Amino acid sequence: MTAPPPDSVEAARRLVEPFLREAVGRLDPMTARVAGYHLGWNDADGRPARAGGKSLRPALATLSARAAGASPSRGASAAAAVELVHAFSLLHDDIMDGDRTRRHRPTAWVVFGRPAAILAGDALLILAMDTLLSDGTQGAVWAARCLSVATQRLITGQAADMEFETRQDVGLDECRRMAEDKTGSLLACACSIGAMTVQAPQPLVTALAAYGSEIGLAFQLADDLLGIWGDPELTGKPALSDLRARKKTLPIVAALAGDTGAGRRLAGLLADPAPLSEADLLEAAQLVDQAGGRAWAEKQAQHHLDVSERILSAAPITPDIRAEFLDIARFITSRDH
Amino acid sequence: MTAPPPDSVEAARRLVEPFLREAVGRLDPMTARVAGYHLGWNDADGRPARAGGKSLRPALATLSARAAGASPSRGASAAAAVELVHAFSLLHDDIMDGDRTRRHRPTAWVVFGRPAAILAGDALLILAMDTLLSDGTQGAVWAARCLSVATQRLITGQAADMEFETRQDVGLDECRRMAEDKTGSLLACACSIGAMTVQAPQPLVTALAAYGSEIGLAFQLADDLLGIWGDPELTGKPALSDLRARKKTLPIVAALAGDTGAGRRLAGLLADPAPLSEADLLEAAQLVDQAGGRAWAEKQAQHHLDVSERILSAAPITPDIRAEFLDIARFITSRDH
Repeated sequence: MTAPPPDSVEAARRLVEPFLREAVGRLDPMTARVAGYHLGWNDADGRPARAGGKSLRPALATLSARAAGASPSRGASAAAAVELVHAFSLLHDDIMDGDRTRRHRPTAWVVFGRPAAILAGDALLILAMDTLLSDGTQGAVWAARCLSVATQRLITGQAADMEFETRQDVGLDECRRMAEDKTGSLLACACSIGAMTVQAPQPLVTALAAYGSEIGLAFQLADDLLGIWGDPELTGKPALSDLRARKKTLPIVAALAGDTGAGRRLAGLLADPAPLSEADLLEAAQLVDQAGGRAWAEKQAQHHLDVSERILSAAPITPDIRAEFLDIARFITSRDH
Repeated sequence: MTAPPPDSVEAARRLVEPFLREAVGRLDPMTARVAGYHLGWNDADGRPARAGGKSLRPALATLSARAAGASPSRGASAAAAVELVHAFSLLHDDIMDGDRTRRHRPTAWVVFGRPAAILAGDALLILAMDTLLSDGTQGAVWAARCLSVATQRLITGQAADMEFETRQDVGLDECRRMAEDKTGSLLACACSIGAMTVQAPQPLVTALAAYGSEIGLAFQLADDLLGIWGDPELTGKPALSDLRARKKTLPIVAALAGDTGAGRRLAGLLADPAPLSEADLLEAAQLVDQAGGRAWAEKQAQHHLDVSERILSAAPITPDIRAEFLDIARFITSRDH
């Protein structure tokens, strides 16, 4: 079952996409084509297409401006900047991880080659910063700093994620920290950057960032579950992809950490340097489940959602803004697509 | 003959390196090791080394602060930011171009693999922006915008450089524009960013940026000549590397553009899709010379140096600052190492 995104997400996409297109339009034609393909706007030959992401971060960023009493359009350029950083990170992650499929299409580096994809990622990152710096208001500068710090954490998280692939002794704490860096930091930024842009009071900004960090962890746990049990038809990625890549995601690390027979068999499978067969992968997924990794991750995701709700309840925002934030949180953690 | 760098270059290195080390020290250990290797501070295992670049951009950036009447230390963090962008671009260019040797050592991607090198480049770019944004003064924000615009042009130049490798009809104008983007933009930024940081008057900033753009072109022409005729012992790169990669550098494009027999033979050689033998490469270098590409590039380099001197003569700076700028310009365009 695929739940439709809340209306606010589609509204944010319509509001922010012109800012994104304006930014990407400043690139040279070849780099713009690679970026446009990655963003789902065009096919490999540059013909218009529609295969983009969900605009969740833009929705959160514009909502964050509204939470501070501003119109959503005041958060639009910050929303575009966050989405550009998100696009940059996926583009480079796909190269680093060797992932060949995203959203049911070949990844950009498969289509255009690594050099063009590396360069397009670089371009998206600097466009993100430039989008805020060209605004020049004090709020935009505050937002730019937030985004540069979030991007640094994102890079730290990706470094840990890659390092974990070759390690058998990854602990649950360092794995959670990796998820906080890789996913939580940019969602925390998305949830607070609109408020920063309009120079909202610090307590509101802090509460929104804390909220974003919690839903980031909930989202990562949901994504990790999909990385093992997600339907490729819905996820747009190959089945069992995280196990195939020997990723140490949270459910897998939880399964390994528990002192169970299934966990020990899983450890043995993953430590074996020989390539994993399809039968191995199916067995590994079963062992994660039997060792309690699946139930643990589901419970943790719910826990972080609960915490995020409590943070929002205490935040100085109106009930309708609160309801919209919660709608988006529920959508991104229940998505199976 | 290798001329020693002016004293101001070594002084700038000593002033700026602590800022660079502080920035890189904020990275996770693995990414810091890759970045430190690329910057020449450590070997592949993390042991201290000394194999760094020349700190030309930091020297220009700190001199730019002094040109505005400030102490060089006022330009140090901006100088570090420019050097971080320069390091980012070399790190990613080496991957994109497949270059295996830089400064007599294997390139970072050869030592650490592409994924770690891509990530380290990303980290250096965002550190550059963060270095200026964390300062937060209005001058630093102006400098950050200058750097983000220069980085965008640098990326545009790299895109053109890569595209030219597969094209036989590259014109001299678009080739010059590529060099302006790829090399001139960051040198223009280096020469003016220190003045921006201390909020110098616009006419001074504009003059220094124009100066930097001119010496950038002179430097690129000198570098292009080294890319064909440079001694590998001195350049730290393989002989004839630009011809080997079928780069369309300025002397090569000038040779192809002139209506000469040598130019036509060169065009035939470079259009042949078969790999070029060592004999082909030596012949191609001779043909560039015979077709006038070498003499043209030497003359053009001198022309841009002359223009840069005229710009400096008219700029509102003291004679000793002017002399230091000229010393650095002469050094970087006469270097054969």
